[in-house]
Amino acid sequence: MSGRLFIVGLGPGDASLQTPRAAEVLAQATDVLGYIPYVARVPERAGLVRHLTDNREEISRARHALALAQAGRTPAVVSSGDPGVFAMASAVFEAIEAGDPAWREIEVEVIPGVSAMFAAAARLGAPLGHDFCALSLSDNLKPWEVVLERLTAAARAGFVIALYNPISKARPWQLGAAFERLREILAPETPIAFARAVSRADERLLTTDLAQARPQDADMSSLVLIGSAQTRRIERPDGRSWLYTRRSLEAAS
Amino acid sequence: MSGRLFIVGLGPGDASLQTPRAAEVLAQATDVLGYIPYVARVPERAGLVRHLTDNREEISRARHALALAQAGRTPAVVSSGDPGVFAMASAVFEAIEAGDPAWREIEVEVIPGVSAMFAAAARLGAPLGHDFCALSLSDNLKPWEVVLERLTAAARAGFVIALYNPISKARPWQLGAAFERLREILAPETPIAFARAVSRADERLLTTDLAQARPQDADMSSLVLIGSAQTRRIERPDGRSWLYTRRSLEAAS
Repeated sequence: MSGRLFIVGLGPGDASLQTPRAAEVLAQATDVLGYIPYVARVPERAGLVRHLTDNREEISRARHALALAQAGRTPAVVSSGDPGVFAMASAVFEAIEAGDPAWREIEVEVIPGVSAMFAAAARLGAPLGHDFCALSLSDNLKPWEVVLERLTAAARAGFVIALYNPISKARPWQLGAAFERLREILAPETPIAFARAVSRADERLLTTDLAQARPQDADMSSLVLIGSAQTRRIERPDGRSWLYTRRSLEAAS
Repeated sequence: MSGRLFIVGLGPGDASLQTPRAAEVLAQATDVLGYIPYVARVPERAGLVRHLTDNREEISRARHALALAQAGRTPAVVSSGDPGVFAMASAVFEAIEAGDPAWREIEVEVIPGVSAMFAAAARLGAPLGHDFCALSLSDNLKPWEVVLERLTAAARAGFVIALYNPISKARPWQLGAAFERLREILAPETPIAFARAVSRADERLLTTDLAQARPQDADMSSLVLIGSAQTRRIERPDGRSWLYTRRSLEAAS
């Protein structure tokens, strides 16, 4: 009995952006494990056991799921967006590598999802339309110097940057420090977007520029997108605008 | 009459990874435009006009779609994966910016999709589990020196790298040159994966390391994933393996 485990991306929030494959495997699961608001997005069903945990407990949650699979149950570990992007998939494989060798026999299926980053970009236009990177601003798992080095390298090289985990109560100053560093590298008019809870009822989008970007416009549920020199704002007659990044380095005609 | 236009991500290939929202808007469209194999993935339907074009014609296809929307039709421009990642969304906004000012009144809805990059990562394990970037290796739209600079900066800074457009008949030597550059920066045992046509009938996955990576293992339909110093390979008893990238900079226990 080798066991089976699903790692499921629920998409950004709206049910119309969740894949049919995610729904299929959630219908087969005996247990669903994840951060409280994500588990809450899985429909209740007789016989489905829900294990809700805080968002700091990735490794213990991963071990719990692996033990359930080993015991013959079919657990699904759920993440918002795509489970491979700053989410549960990496934690599960980390637990496998360090854990019971029998866990390597478990059939693990990772179900990709529409990531928060791409849902946010779609709402804004096409800001990730050319070379880009995704960078976690959290210094819980890497030193702040490394975060800053990566941010600097990406901005200097011309990548658009999607900042994950930009701010929290425990990390209040890092986003401000990141903007300070970016102001030394990029033009003041570089477009910046704050995207919160995209496709959910409490969605909030704000577009500004690097000169005016303020850390307090982000919260724990936000992504911050940093444009490159090729990122353009298209003004519309009704006052709205689109952001997109040109595919080429030539200036616009 | 301002018009309406959809830019639709079809997902990586398998229908179970296409969002319900994509199916909804394709059911409303009067016209579907795109690269031939992508348009072929949209179900035929009475009254739906299909405009199939070659993959070099992004801007003329975008202008055509905008003209159709302006004329009162409801076109859907389709891309594989996510339309905002090296795909049609950026081309449409570029056409809007340079085109008829009335096009700025068109209601454009971008429907995000499961990107090829995340579908490939899910099949492999979690190689994009921490900071990563997406880089097009094509020098059609930017000078090769810029491609190489970005590749160098990303590898030095510790990003996992997803290489899009790694090779084609017109660009046969660039991937080999990229591997050469990477061998000056990263350890020979750095994991490399070639992922082709993920979730489709002709899917092919190959995992190797930087010392042994060969350009001929990629083709036009491939993504190449370059690990970082935190990317690990977990061997399984049956000879298969998973790739994942650790979330922290500390060494594995």
